[in-house]
Amino acid sequence: MTEKVLQYLRDNREAQLHALHNFLSIPSVSTDSKHKEDVHQAAQFVKEYLDKIGFDKVRVQPTKGHPLVYGEWLGAGNDAPTILLYGHYDVQPADPLELWDSEPFKPEVRDGRLYARGASDDKGQVFMHLAVFEAFMKTEGTLPINVKVCIEGEEEIGSENLYDILTKRKEQFQADFAVISDSGMVASGQPTILYGLKGFTGLEFTLHGPSNDLHSGLYGGAVRNPAIAMAHLLASLKDQEEVVQVAGFYDGVEALGEEERRLIDNVPGENYQESTGIPETVSEKGYTAKEHTMARPTLEVNGLFGGYQGEGTKTIIPSAATAKITCRLVPGQDPDVIQGLLVKHLEENVPRGVKLEVKREPLSAKAYKVDPNHPLIEKAAESYTKAFGKETVYVRMGGSIPVVEWIESIYHMPIVLLGFGTPEDRLHSPNESFALDSYDKGMETLVYYWNAVRND
Amino acid sequence: MTEKVLQYLRDNREAQLHALHNFLSIPSVSTDSKHKEDVHQAAQFVKEYLDKIGFDKVRVQPTKGHPLVYGEWLGAGNDAPTILLYGHYDVQPADPLELWDSEPFKPEVRDGRLYARGASDDKGQVFMHLAVFEAFMKTEGTLPINVKVCIEGEEEIGSENLYDILTKRKEQFQADFAVISDSGMVASGQPTILYGLKGFTGLEFTLHGPSNDLHSGLYGGAVRNPAIAMAHLLASLKDQEEVVQVAGFYDGVEALGEEERRLIDNVPGENYQESTGIPETVSEKGYTAKEHTMARPTLEVNGLFGGYQGEGTKTIIPSAATAKITCRLVPGQDPDVIQGLLVKHLEENVPRGVKLEVKREPLSAKAYKVDPNHPLIEKAAESYTKAFGKETVYVRMGGSIPVVEWIESIYHMPIVLLGFGTPEDRLHSPNESFALDSYDKGMETLVYYWNAVRND
Repeated sequence: MTEKVLQYLRDNREAQLHALHNFLSIPSVSTDSKHKEDVHQAAQFVKEYLDKIGFDKVRVQPTKGHPLVYGEWLGAGNDAPTILLYGHYDVQPADPLELWDSEPFKPEVRDGRLYARGASDDKGQVFMHLAVFEAFMKTEGTLPINVKVCIEGEEEIGSENLYDILTKRKEQFQADFAVISDSGMVASGQPTILYGLKGFTGLEFTLHGPSNDLHSGLYGGAVRNPAIAMAHLLASLKDQEEVVQVAGFYDGVEALGEEERRLIDNVPGENYQESTGIPETVSEKGYTAKEHTMARPTLEVNGLFGGYQGEGTKTIIPSAATAKITCRLVPGQDPDVIQGLLVKHLEENVPRGVKLEVKREPLSAKAYKVDPNHPLIEKAAESYTKAFGKETVYVRMGGSIPVVEWIESIYHMPIVLLGFGTPEDRLHSPNESFALDSYDKGMETLVYYWNAVRND
Repeated sequence: MTEKVLQYLRDNREAQLHALHNFLSIPSVSTDSKHKEDVHQAAQFVKEYLDKIGFDKVRVQPTKGHPLVYGEWLGAGNDAPTILLYGHYDVQPADPLELWDSEPFKPEVRDGRLYARGASDDKGQVFMHLAVFEAFMKTEGTLPINVKVCIEGEEEIGSENLYDILTKRKEQFQADFAVISDSGMVASGQPTILYGLKGFTGLEFTLHGPSNDLHSGLYGGAVRNPAIAMAHLLASLKDQEEVVQVAGFYDGVEALGEEERRLIDNVPGENYQESTGIPETVSEKGYTAKEHTMARPTLEVNGLFGGYQGEGTKTIIPSAATAKITCRLVPGQDPDVIQGLLVKHLEENVPRGVKLEVKREPLSAKAYKVDPNHPLIEKAAESYTKAFGKETVYVRMGGSIPVVEWIESIYHMPIVLLGFGTPEDRLHSPNESFALDSYDKGMETLVYYWNAVRND
């Protein structure tokens, strides 16, 4: 039965790619109100495709912003699991247009890659699911699993209305587990299971000194310089061995076990010096760069400013200095607790002579991690390996995907992140593309996977 | 003889103030090329006044920029000293105009103060000298001293051409000592001898990390954050007790003796909390705020920046962070040596993982200090006290006046800083003014002083 489905995909490759071209031709830029109609048209494309395949209850579901598309096919029976498939049909703006080698909304294949805005993030990956469902339905008349499809139109603007809908319509989206294909592989052709994401919290703080910038000659020696006070306070947050010095910061963080260290060690590493131009990598004492980026919490200064920034010299004592900091968190760390510890540290360590003002960042996210030995994860890894002909690697990532945290916190269901992007995809940048090799082998992976999980 | 001169000043107060009004009415803004003619007209005013008094060799002397006015009167004979009088006839721009209560170039007297741009800095103080010379010449037909007058037109733009002229025409400006009236008293009505100025040196440095801002989730843990590296490096320059930690920084700085501590203690202190809004003063360990500001070197961050400065959060690792620092120096510290020590400290303490780039500030100044017991200083103090009816205080100041350093280094002559401004004068700001009480008593001081130094 698998072979027939795969054969359908091979036989209909041109026609399906043609449909994907049409999908990618719609400039569904969610952040730009002049593309409102286009966004709606892209939703309509997904709806019509689901209709065509034979899904039920297919609809463009309105929100306060851009609509989401819902559809379900629950004909696999009670023995088969029900999965919630999440993706998004909206895209990032395409500008600066002059940096594109072909037009962002006129898809073009060059050297085995499909170039278009959204080719990888996320229309291409959403379409792969539609194409695979089509192949099952056209050859078998059925899917191996029950499916609820939720494709939203506001991911690129922070999924503004999704949390609300997921909370209010729990019945509609309830499933056994969720699958999200909105991420990537660590290298082209390298099957990758993303089994953990970091959470985050942040704040901005200002050290206020004199009410105005002061003459450094007349006041230097009497007035604490807020920029130097800032240096002392920031330096107290993290030492030069990259160990965060905030009391309680690491409380509850689970130790990195031997198995996980081995998983991380198996992941092909990025050559950071080459890709970022840094003279050397620097990581937390006792951890490699891969271990620290994937599995250990971080604290970063995202912005820092105070005083004169123009050309040359202005001999002032600045009236204030400000820093923006965010932390990436791992399981065991609660974002609100960590934010509180940061504030406490700042309050306790603020140098004399300046006043501390803290603005807490209201957005936060909990870290997410699934057991890499979970059967759903193991089957995903096996399916990847079968399709790509290569051992699957397991990674955790420093980024956060809000929808992952929401699905977990609202539905308490496992989430499988099946991503097919490659590091060369240039998401959010000019010349976004998607490797057709990933497209073909990714669909093959999905065919194997749905068959594999059918009886779980 | 003194009484006749003073009587002349009283009898001719109206006429002289009228002339000062005319002087102040000329918008001689040296930084603004559309005022080039006005600047020249102000020079012409000074020239004509010197002519009228009976000075010799009076001329508007061209430079590459705005001219200076020179004139001399050497009729006091070989027994009398020759003094070089320095001042400037150019002024700061007047904007923002809407913050002035009367027009900046229409002088107006309100509540015992003369309001106009330049009233205190420095036209008013230059004019006082002219008026006093006039009084001597009209009543005695002679001055008690020989005088060379040098009034420049580029002080507010860094005295660009003065150093060159002072160096090339040593014969022309050579004298026994110099007098400069371009400063102020520590409080209205409080005679003040300024016997020391700080020098300065500075530099800007940047810590370069990745070639672009990076995603803090993907790279945090592998890449040193330049803003945090900056915090560590800046914090290493000065500890929280305000002691500079740069090796060799204090080498050669003379200890603050008991006599000087007493002089400084006598100076009425500024209430820094009130005037600047700071919660408390912070000074170098072992020194009071007055001692540190007046007589101890300082290191300040004038500007600090890196990464995101907009609203809210942007989760990046900045590609670089930059700091601008300047030091105010005291006698015994060579600006070039100190700059070199700073660079060495930065090079030796730069955290791993970032690259240091240093831009040395080319401008620098040596500190200046004259012995407060020098007879020329003692006589100035006595003259002040006689005119103002109050004990003179002795101060050193954290600022630098480049011309002071130049006159000292080129001519090796004592310099007496006879300033009559008050802290309320609002130099360089809207509503600049000059207290007429300072104007009258300042001229009286000058009359006493010229008589007192006649036979030195």
